[in-house]
Amino acid sequence: MTKATSVSAERVKGRESVIRVAAIQMEPRVGDKAGNVERQRSLIADAAGQGVRLMVLPELGNTGYIFNTRDEVAELAEEVPGGPTCAMWIDACREGNVYVCAGITERDGGRFYNSAALVGPGGFIGKYRKVHLWDEEKLFFEPGDLGLPVFHLPFGRVGVMICYDGWHPEVARILALQGADIICDPTCWVLVPGIVTAENPISAWVHMASAHVNGVFMICADRCGVERGCTFLGNSCVLGPAGFVAGPASFDKTEVLSAEINLVQARYKHWTDLADPFADRRTDLYDRLLGYRPPR
Amino acid sequence: MTKATSVSAERVKGRESVIRVAAIQMEPRVGDKAGNVERQRSLIADAAGQGVRLMVLPELGNTGYIFNTRDEVAELAEEVPGGPTCAMWIDACREGNVYVCAGITERDGGRFYNSAALVGPGGFIGKYRKVHLWDEEKLFFEPGDLGLPVFHLPFGRVGVMICYDGWHPEVARILALQGADIICDPTCWVLVPGIVTAENPISAWVHMASAHVNGVFMICADRCGVERGCTFLGNSCVLGPAGFVAGPASFDKTEVLSAEINLVQARYKHWTDLADPFADRRTDLYDRLLGYRPPR
Repeated sequence: MTKATSVSAERVKGRESVIRVAAIQMEPRVGDKAGNVERQRSLIADAAGQGVRLMVLPELGNTGYIFNTRDEVAELAEEVPGGPTCAMWIDACREGNVYVCAGITERDGGRFYNSAALVGPGGFIGKYRKVHLWDEEKLFFEPGDLGLPVFHLPFGRVGVMICYDGWHPEVARILALQGADIICDPTCWVLVPGIVTAENPISAWVHMASAHVNGVFMICADRCGVERGCTFLGNSCVLGPAGFVAGPASFDKTEVLSAEINLVQARYKHWTDLADPFADRRTDLYDRLLGYRPPR
Repeated sequence: MTKATSVSAERVKGRESVIRVAAIQMEPRVGDKAGNVERQRSLIADAAGQGVRLMVLPELGNTGYIFNTRDEVAELAEEVPGGPTCAMWIDACREGNVYVCAGITERDGGRFYNSAALVGPGGFIGKYRKVHLWDEEKLFFEPGDLGLPVFHLPFGRVGVMICYDGWHPEVARILALQGADIICDPTCWVLVPGIVTAENPISAWVHMASAHVNGVFMICADRCGVERGCTFLGNSCVLGPAGFVAGPASFDKTEVLSAEINLVQARYKHWTDLADPFADRRTDLYDRLLGYRPPR
């Protein structure tokens, strides 16, 4: 019942928090932590040189993704922020005056987490531990126990999710409800024969939908390449309320995919005077029903 | 951490509930209820002739979508299932031995609802009243008060949503959690300049994402054309766990968009032995957070 002319980027004109952001798509080598982090450092510097202020690196990108034994995990995992990988990222951020959200294999005592660290020119900012563990991640990692945090950076509010979290639409919704303007998503999207393929990169579109329905920006930084027989999707992207801002990237190349965005746009949730998807939520129905288990 | 080879349609081989379904895209004329329902009857017969067993017609398709006055609504609204439109649909279903889910302007005493009726060869089955009213629908309609029902038909479980419900990812999730194999979505997707356009039919992709993450089928039957200055998107589609099964349809033509699907596939929610998105849900986090209001 509307032409909804008021929802375009036009309405935010003159209200700005403009930054260049990037998804850094790369191919870590499993086990080669020093080499991976060294290459990340160089990619961070490249992006900084292009004026990027906030960038995302892939899930478990410092170690590689496929672990066969708990011993492998134990050997590569490190404390966040106490370990050498975070130290290197912080150094790169200081040097480039940038912010980095990056996937890391975390150790905390005898526990391991599939985590993301958020670091900036002033040092360590915070971390997120993946709450939805995909498949064999369950063999070695603990499910995240730090909730779904939103961090406040100078240019806006930043939520974090990792990969399979994106198949749970509750996650982006909850981050947006807490005020996230942009969601950083270090990811390792895998090919799924017959469903998710290089020709049908459905993972990128699923996140496009989440950015749109939540009126937020997203940076999905996927890895590419093949590791221990598992092929990854690439197709990293920068997303906004109107869909793709940049990407999807290539299937198999290392790339710094960057775009300039105005984060203020994420604060305008309403579409018209009478249509505001967040005000229109029927929490009376969700509260009762979202805990359901499907009948078997 | 997986090749996830077990999730393709292959694994359901030999377990079947195969039906042909259709999204009927059409252009109702506002106020011309008799004419609209007559054309719907003819389209239902066409689809039945093509072997379609379950079909969906657009939102408020018996009356047209844009109402300027409450008097207009009052004049066109009718009881569901007591009114002439449902009688005509039931008649068409008996004749064609088919099931129809169709948008209707409902009256219940002094209240009006943006509803969908589900009817079949045996008569009236049930109805759904849109719970998320879009924009100026709020001027004349009451928000739905029948929850988010799932109906049991001979070939499987059928959930219903209407249009703007699709921008609330909670709805498809809740229907899937209640066991819906397929979701019928009578809709009136509007163009939104700068965001949703014929060149960027983001609405169709948002529903593709919902079908995928919930592992269900969906039939989105949009209207097309221009009504009182409002342009609709067309782009109706039939969706499944792997994305588009048929469509998106044209932007501006009446079409019966049909596809054959195996509803049994929607019962296989898991991707691998260790990855089952429904079992993996972190309801401990959702319960606490989904009722949040964003900070302003």
